[in-house]
Amino acid sequence: MQIPVVRNVLEANEKLAQVVRERVRGILTLNLISSPGAGKTTLLERTLTDLSGEFKMAVIEGDLQTDNDARRVAATGVQAVQIDTDGGCHLDSKLVLQAMDHLDMEGLDILFIENVGNLVCPTEFDLGEDAKVGILSVTEGDDKPEKYPLLFNLAKALVLNKVDLLPYVNFDVERAVTFARRLNKDLPVFQVSCTKGEGLKDWYTWLRAQVKLKKAG
Amino acid sequence: MQIPVVRNVLEANEKLAQVVRERVRGILTLNLISSPGAGKTTLLERTLTDLSGEFKMAVIEGDLQTDNDARRVAATGVQAVQIDTDGGCHLDSKLVLQAMDHLDMEGLDILFIENVGNLVCPTEFDLGEDAKVGILSVTEGDDKPEKYPLLFNLAKALVLNKVDLLPYVNFDVERAVTFARRLNKDLPVFQVSCTKGEGLKDWYTWLRAQVKLKKAG
Repeated sequence: MQIPVVRNVLEANEKLAQVVRERVRGILTLNLISSPGAGKTTLLERTLTDLSGEFKMAVIEGDLQTDNDARRVAATGVQAVQIDTDGGCHLDSKLVLQAMDHLDMEGLDILFIENVGNLVCPTEFDLGEDAKVGILSVTEGDDKPEKYPLLFNLAKALVLNKVDLLPYVNFDVERAVTFARRLNKDLPVFQVSCTKGEGLKDWYTWLRAQVKLKKAG
Repeated sequence: MQIPVVRNVLEANEKLAQVVRERVRGILTLNLISSPGAGKTTLLERTLTDLSGEFKMAVIEGDLQTDNDARRVAATGVQAVQIDTDGGCHLDSKLVLQAMDHLDMEGLDILFIENVGNLVCPTEFDLGEDAKVGILSVTEGDDKPEKYPLLFNLAKALVLNKVDLLPYVNFDVERAVTFARRLNKDLPVFQVSCTKGEGLKDWYTWLRAQVKLKKAG
């Protein structure tokens, strides 16, 4: 009984993902996925601040509860809309479309969608994005790409965050990256510390290239 | 269409949770829930090693993929069974019953069930346990009880792990505990470092008391 319904849910989501794709023509749309507390919001705060002179950006924030993250993002001066999933474990395209109705999309270069903190469920739902971006923090352990393979398989970029804590934890960067690239051969990996603001240059270079690709259509 | 089916799934799970409850009479059964990489397996390794002279224990390990954690647990000399959810985001009672068929339950004092690393979905599924135990690591941020309230509401104990990293991260222990206790007034909180083996005494005292309560029936 369960499987056909789950399939219907995924099919309905896929149809609405196509509607999202129509509405974000020319706007680079990134779906940020990670465990709780890996640093998605801090990555956004840095990126929005550092690239505000270059790009017009907006953020859709997904959370089970609270609008804390949307308020953090809005403090950078960038448009932010909160989706409260009311306990739901992932975003879907219907929620994203509802959020887009509250955004001024005119002239946007980048739309960031911060998914619910969850390394499993969000990956299964296409939001009409150009790319899923995985964020893994070194405090979570170097075995995560092996244990939670779907995200590392589907992501088009991996941000390895909290590298400032490497001296204090057991995390073998080479091991994690090797696992991830076994699933996803040419996966770009950016080693950063979002709280310290370190290592973000290559991430920004990647973003610039993606914006250019998207605009070229 | 979706909601009634989800309700059926939860009802079917609840029935099988009753079957689990019958089978663990006199055996303290704990459902360990956390984000990926918060330290569930390391907490188990320490606990199994330190209490092996006192209690007969066993572990059911839930993972999307790999039997890495079951192998880590088995290395302590304790019985371990792996449940591979094949991508599923949480354990359910049916999976737990299947795993129990592979365990020698005779004379057990404690059965630990390590759920899939996920701060959302596992909390919604009763596994027939005596208590859910939440594990939160300080690297995840002190806002997690507020943002993921269900686990912190339902847990009967909270292990606050990785306190050895407090000097290097922005985490206000008081703030996290205040949020958690706003949801769950008398929640016991154990501040530990599982990798360093620090602060575990109170956790063990709590476990001993729970075993005694369970046996008293």
